Amino acid sequence: MVFEYIDSVLNDPILMPGGNYIKVGKDSAQSIYLIFSPHSEEVGILARYLKIFENHRVNLFHIESRASTRMPNKYEFVVECCPDGDIEAAISDIKDLSDYFNIITRNYKDNKESVPWFPNRIRDLDRFANQILSYGAELDCDHPGFTDPVYRARRKYFADIAYNYKHGQPLPHVDYTKEEIDTWGQVFRQLTKLYPTHACKEHNHVFPLLVQNCGYREDNIPQLEDISNFLKDCTGFTLRPVAGLLSSRDFLAGLAFRVFHSTQYIRHSSRPLYTPEPDVCHEVLGHVPLFADPSFAQFSQEIGLASLGAPDDYIEKLATCFWFTVEYGLCRENGQLKAFGAGLLSSYGELKYALEDKAEVRPFEPAKTALQKYPITEYQPVYYVAESFEDAKDKMIKYASTIPRGFGVRYSAYTQSIDVLDSKPQIEGLITNINQEMQILMDALKKL
Amino acid sequence: MVFEYIDSVLNDPILMPGGNYIKVGKDSAQSIYLIFSPHSEEVGILARYLKIFENHRVNLFHIESRASTRMPNKYEFVVECCPDGDIEAAISDIKDLSDYFNIITRNYKDNKESVPWFPNRIRDLDRFANQILSYGAELDCDHPGFTDPVYRARRKYFADIAYNYKHGQPLPHVDYTKEEIDTWGQVFRQLTKLYPTHACKEHNHVFPLLVQNCGYREDNIPQLEDISNFLKDCTGFTLRPVAGLLSSRDFLAGLAFRVFHSTQYIRHSSRPLYTPEPDVCHEVLGHVPLFADPSFAQFSQEIGLASLGAPDDYIEKLATCFWFTVEYGLCRENGQLKAFGAGLLSSYGELKYALEDKAEVRPFEPAKTALQKYPITEYQPVYYVAESFEDAKDKMIKYASTIPRGFGVRYSAYTQSIDVLDSKPQIEGLITNINQEMQILMDALKKL
Amino acid sequence: MVFEYIDSVLNDPILMPGGNYIKVGKDSAQSIYLIFSPHSEEVGILARYLKIFENHRVNLFHIESRASTRMPNKYEFVVECCPDGDIEAAISDIKDLSDYFNIITRNYKDNKESVPWFPNRIRDLDRFANQILSYGAELDCDHPGFTDPVYRARRKYFADIAYNYKHGQPLPHVDYTKEEIDTWGQVFRQLTKLYPTHACKEHNHVFPLLVQNCGYREDNIPQLEDISNFLKDCTGFTLRPVAGLLSSRDFLAGLAFRVFHSTQYIRHSSRPLYTPEPDVCHEVLGHVPLFADPSFAQFSQEIGLASLGAPDDYIEKLATCFWFTVEYGLCRENGQLKAFGAGLLSSYGELKYALEDKAEVRPFEPAKTALQKYPITEYQPVYYVAESFEDAKDKMIKYASTIPRGFGVRYSAYTQSIDVLDSKPQIEGLITNINQEMQILMDALKKL
Amino acid sequence: MVFEYIDSVLNDPILMPGGNYIKVGKDSAQSIYLIFSPHSEEVGILARYLKIFENHRVNLFHIESRASTRMPNKYEFVVECCPDGDIEAAISDIKDLSDYFNIITRNYKDNKESVPWFPNRIRDLDRFANQILSYGAELDCDHPGFTDPVYRARRKYFADIAYNYKHGQPLPHVDYTKEEIDTWGQVFRQLTKLYPTHACKEHNHVFPLLVQNCGYREDNIPQLEDISNFLKDCTGFTLRPVAGLLSSRDFLAGLAFRVFHSTQYIRHSSRPLYTPEPDVCHEVLGHVPLFADPSFAQFSQEIGLASLGAPDDYIEKLATCFWFTVEYGLCRENGQLKAFGAGLLSSYGELKYALEDKAEVRPFEPAKTALQKYPITEYQPVYYVAESFEDAKDKMIKYASTIPRGFGVRYSAYTQSIDVLDSKPQIEGLITNINQEMQILMDALKKL
Repeated sequence: MVFEYIDSVLNDPILMPGGNYIKVGKDSAQSIYLIFSPHSEEVGILARYLKIFENHRVNLFHIESRASTRMPNKYEFVVECCPDGDIEAAISDIKDLSDYFNIITRNYKDNKESVPWFPNRIRDLDRFANQILSYGAELDCDHPGFTDPVYRARRKYFADIAYNYKHGQPLPHVDYTKEEIDTWGQVFRQLTKLYPTHACKEHNHVFPLLVQNCGYREDNIPQLEDISNFLKDCTGFTLRPVAGLLSSRDFLAGLAFRVFHSTQYIRHSSRPLYTPEPDVCHEVLGHVPLFADPSFAQFSQEIGLASLGAPDDYIEKLATCFWFTVEYGLCRENGQLKAFGAGLLSSYGELKYALEDKAEVRPFEPAKTALQKYPITEYQPVYYVAESFEDAKDKMIKYASTIPRGFGVRYSAYTQSIDVLDSKPQIEGLITNINQEMQILMDALKKL
Repeated sequence: MVFEYIDSVLNDPILMPGGNYIKVGKDSAQSIYLIFSPHSEEVGILARYLKIFENHRVNLFHIESRASTRMPNKYEFVVECCPDGDIEAAISDIKDLSDYFNIITRNYKDNKESVPWFPNRIRDLDRFANQILSYGAELDCDHPGFTDPVYRARRKYFADIAYNYKHGQPLPHVDYTKEEIDTWGQVFRQLTKLYPTHACKEHNHVFPLLVQNCGYREDNIPQLEDISNFLKDCTGFTLRPVAGLLSSRDFLAGLAFRVFHSTQYIRHSSRPLYTPEPDVCHEVLGHVPLFADPSFAQFSQEIGLASLGAPDDYIEKLATCFWFTVEYGLCRENGQLKAFGAGLLSSYGELKYALEDKAEVRPFEPAKTALQKYPITEYQPVYYVAESFEDAKDKMIKYASTIPRGFGVRYSAYTQSIDVLDSKPQIEGLITNINQEMQILMDALKKL
Repeated sequence: MVFEYIDSVLNDPILMPGGNYIKVGKDSAQSIYLIFSPHSEEVGILARYLKIFENHRVNLFHIESRASTRMPNKYEFVVECCPDGDIEAAISDIKDLSDYFNIITRNYKDNKESVPWFPNRIRDLDRFANQILSYGAELDCDHPGFTDPVYRARRKYFADIAYNYKHGQPLPHVDYTKEEIDTWGQVFRQLTKLYPTHACKEHNHVFPLLVQNCGYREDNIPQLEDISNFLKDCTGFTLRPVAGLLSSRDFLAGLAFRVFHSTQYIRHSSRPLYTPEPDVCHEVLGHVPLFADPSFAQFSQEIGLASLGAPDDYIEKLATCFWFTVEYGLCRENGQLKAFGAGLLSSYGELKYALEDKAEVRPFEPAKTALQKYPITEYQPVYYVAESFEDAKDKMIKYASTIPRGFGVRYSAYTQSIDVLDSKPQIEGLITNINQEMQILMDALKKL
Repeated sequence: MVFEYIDSVLNDPILMPGGNYIKVGKDSAQSIYLIFSPHSEEVGILARYLKIFENHRVNLFHIESRASTRMPNKYEFVVECCPDGDIEAAISDIKDLSDYFNIITRNYKDNKESVPWFPNRIRDLDRFANQILSYGAELDCDHPGFTDPVYRARRKYFADIAYNYKHGQPLPHVDYTKEEIDTWGQVFRQLTKLYPTHACKEHNHVFPLLVQNCGYREDNIPQLEDISNFLKDCTGFTLRPVAGLLSSRDFLAGLAFRVFHSTQYIRHSSRPLYTPEPDVCHEVLGHVPLFADPSFAQFSQEIGLASLGAPDDYIEKLATCFWFTVEYGLCRENGQLKAFGAGLLSSYGELKYALEDKAEVRPFEPAKTALQKYPITEYQPVYYVAESFEDAKDKMIKYASTIPRGFGVRYSAYTQSIDVLDSKPQIEGLITNINQEMQILMDALKKL
């Protein structure tokens, strides 16, 4: 009974309030997430679950109860626990008590049943900081700034900013040095000469707005905060600073939330037209203008949504699709090739090369494009051409439906979270939602 | 040409960067908003527009250019200006230069053509603070706290907090006094006895989660910040503190953004079971649990969306619908009446009265309910019964389509802004969006 | 394997070709229909099924194989059999061999599992002739024509025509006598005076087209064939002659196919303004004009679709809804009541009475209207008012969804048959179909 | 006023009843169709229109009034007239009196404004008989039957049957000669050996049902009537006999109605495995099984719908798409190529050739496939591969939306007619219809 349940809730000494982590000295990168709904909601059910963990010596990091979206009027529990003790036995006992049960874990390779971990709420992206593959201050020996101690200190400064950033905070404002602004100015001056003829119309449409609203100027490196606010107004995309290299899985997952992980440092001043890695020029001149376009934003998000919980080989395929579109994509306008990929739009040399009819071009077909090998540090041997962002998005959605995954996904922009779709009530909810959109459509049409 | 346009943008000395207000010493409550797209985007078009304002001695507060949603690849300008100079002549000249033109103003009564002002972005809600009908610290002479200087000072404290609040800031944390907590405790104890039998199932479903997550306890007044974060996770609703009485138009407009304007002070301790106005008990015990329910949240938002730009008489009708649902609504569960209105759920006496078969009940039919007169300070003479929140929402949407308004509206949760739907490309966008939802539906169904 | 299956089909001596009835001397009104799909389609599966019937001494009338709509690339069998032998044991054995199994029968009352019989294809309506509750030539002793042998002979003539009618044949042309045409003329003259002021706008819109196209004239009784062809062009409705009183279940089922069972005889000449039963005046002046209206046609069909396989008590409720809409419905036009029910539009007296503010009127709400008792031979004590045909249709569809029935239904106008929706592939088919409609919508909108 | 309008209709001596042709001695192939709605519907409006034709000496074949689908509660007139007199002046006068005006004509080449004629109702297909490009009995000198007078007489017999056929009649039953059945038997025996391995799964799925239901046997040539009835039950497709070669425009238009124009004669017995033109073997073994598949039926219909009123060059492109799909299409099943084109499925030699990896295959992309040249009498140099019928249909619909045509089209299976979509009320009707489909979907899902 609900009444008793309230009483129990009010008095239960073991209750673990949602939102608070109970640190037990272990790295949460090893966490296993169990999501389950009890068969019945009698008093003491929570205690029975907790007893199971205790009996099998499984340590908990966090426990949270919430309304179930799968079973109306029921609750579900989300438990983050250590993969220690007799976790298998605990899982088996929990299943016996539950109507719904699901495992999400980073250690999915050992476990057929489990789904690879992915962020569920936008604030879960905070966890990526602990999982970067290399820290931003570590430079390869052939990096132009390798022997420059000032530059290296500066890189550490930027990495530290990003490492400590949490969702919801304003993006840190950076005072760039005169040397940095000069480097930026050289890149800006060269590229803006090419854009009118080489960039796609969406890039050229947005660029003046960035000049007006975000301080894009030869003598000023725009602040990520201003850009992120501008993008939020246009398409809901936002930027997050990133301290180093993310795994493809994590990077793509950000896109599912319309979050783009952006560097904030700039390339070394000794070679202003070269950078072996993304820098602020690449991000703000190449990527940002496109994320302000609604169709492109949706296309990018589709890649992200497709990646959530996908098997490793599909993560690689999706990363390849990302590479040949968001990074190196071409499109056709009135029969002429134009660039929309940020890798092109931030490289004077390759931007000219790619559109000069010497490079091989093929139509973008996700199933085929996903298999293409590519070099990171040279000009691409082949470019893929999208008919339009709408068409690319449609193809991506179709391709996504071929990824083996036991559930559908939908992003809720209201709650900035992912709905994992694996029950009939959720599908009924989708239909209700579409009906409502149809009514908006009907009303708008009548008003036309 | 776009290229020239960029140049112009880069060099134009008169450019007014978006986002910065040019204060000219006037209250923006009198502002007129003009939205227009130029016929052609040749160099100097902005200068021509600005010259028009100058010629007719119309002062500008703000000017912003943005991508048009109505005409792909075109821009539109939003100008906030003073209703001074020869504004009529200026408008006429601007129309001659423009493909699209629209006026939004608070002074709509004098102007047949213009649309009553409404907030377009969630941060526009910050403007309400200047438009409250009475400041929260002003008490009527029959208010229980009228002669209590400590209470009055406290009320001013709360009003000041709210007055200075801006969108995006954390909601101010308040340390309640022991006396205040005692008052809360009495209300809490009484009402929680009635909820299991008198409140609707949605209220009872959410309540334990508020206990767990937001500190709902007899000895603790929950903080708006915790509640707002909880609601954001559930349905995207958020709370905003309010410094005094808002007009119906402004209050309802907040709901369109899933924003609920909430008081933060508590009733006077001399009469713990009575309050002549909403207080924190009413908000957090009555309103909050329902806003965590997805269907109810959508229903509430529909009232808000219906109100945007509606004529004054319809604002009153919508406020009446709000009154008899969100404030005093009943519903039927397995044949039994239950309460979901916050006015009932925060009043021990009226909650019992309304469900005791003495009160008159009628089915909720927006077109009829909207015409019912009601007292503010006594028990209601009639209550309206909703079949379900889904049904009430459907009826509300149908009713909304009868409101005379020259455009449709849609809320974009990505950009937290209102799409004013009055063009064919927007309608095509809606269809594209529905198609995408259908694909999500298809994918989810196949995975079932 | 398909290849072996083809061989088996080509050579199987026991194959029962679809479409041919194997009469075994029993009335098919007792038939039980079994629909099933075999687990596997190996050679000889049909023989195994047939052996089951033989073993349990169940006689077959008909067996047909067809492509399954539920399981792509599989077949299903439809068996019409006698409820003799050990039918229960046979059913049990068949279930063991089958993936899908369903029973449809007229003897559903004894069998929890079975669905009340309903026509599946439009030609199945031919079976109603054998199930009429009373033959058209039998008159009650208070019938105006009871003692008139010529009239009785004439009634038998009309009943025989209808009794022998089969789907697909032209509707029999009738040469009406001078006396019959005179009776018609009196009715026609009187009613056409009232229509401009009393009939709904849809009736008045269609009436001149019936004059032009179907010979509606004072001196001519229109032929059902002409009317049916006209209706087919307007909405796809067609008429079928009926030999006597159909059960509500059968009559409503016709509407699911947009088929209206129509009398063809005329009332007795002694009382031209009175008839105790529907006659050709009632049908062609009252019903026919409305069936030419697309929204009304769809509304009527919804009642029919709701009735298919519904429990007996719901058949009665649906018949009551039919009574208070299609027979006696009112609607409001610019605030004024108008009639659209055929019982009113074919009765000079009641048409005036119903609109003269003396009669009680209530809003049409299927769940409530369905419970209202009504007299057959007097003026109605209460009339129900539909907001519009669209609104009535929406309400009917919602009401239909509350009828306990284990499947959805959809009419396919291409195949003139009912799709029983009880599998996921069918639901996927619906979504595909909606997507296609969305594309038609998008294309049409762009062309606007 | 409507009342006066009825009076006018009842008494107007000039009224031309719909459905009756007024022959004035001219071939209707030259007809011009004018469709228009009067500004106002006052008494005498029809007379005013008729006076216009008289004044300008334009002869009328036919005039019909009907309810307008474009303007609710209004009428529209369809006039079929001779292109004689001063037709241009008449058109100009009529436009002045009308809200809506459209011209449909076979002589569209001279007239920018006019739409190429297409059948509007299924019975309009009867007009094709007068427009065949060559009569079926005329053989080329290299035809195997050229010198065989018996065969030529037989061909004339078949052509005459088809020439006199009218919509709605049963398809003529033919008694084939022993020689003809022998020819059929040889073809049947050979091809059925290849089907299990070479035909697509849809063909193999349907084939046994044709054996059971339509008499497909080595010793029996199936009757078109049986096949047409079978197809009608499966997908609503029907067959029509054709007396000779139709133009591409007319042939494709039939598909819009799910009508397939089929030959009924058989090839000459001297060369049973060769035919220079379609014959009954080609139709019933090649085409018919596919038309029983719902997705394929819809795909075929889309080509037909795309063709209605399309410019001549697009007719050719659509005919080419038809050729490389319905006639010579391949598809892939589990990585293996299979045939679904009737030209392949009725040719033992080419069926083997096309699947033996020697032929060139390309993916079906309407925009590209539409440009491919092809030989009629040799093996194809290239074959196109469809991913699936659903995918081919989607691509066809997208391609169709690129055809320059001032309106959308939709087939109404209820009225067996084409809705020309060029008004807002029609688009609102589409949305209403989709909403209804969504409700069917929701209901079916809940019942699952």
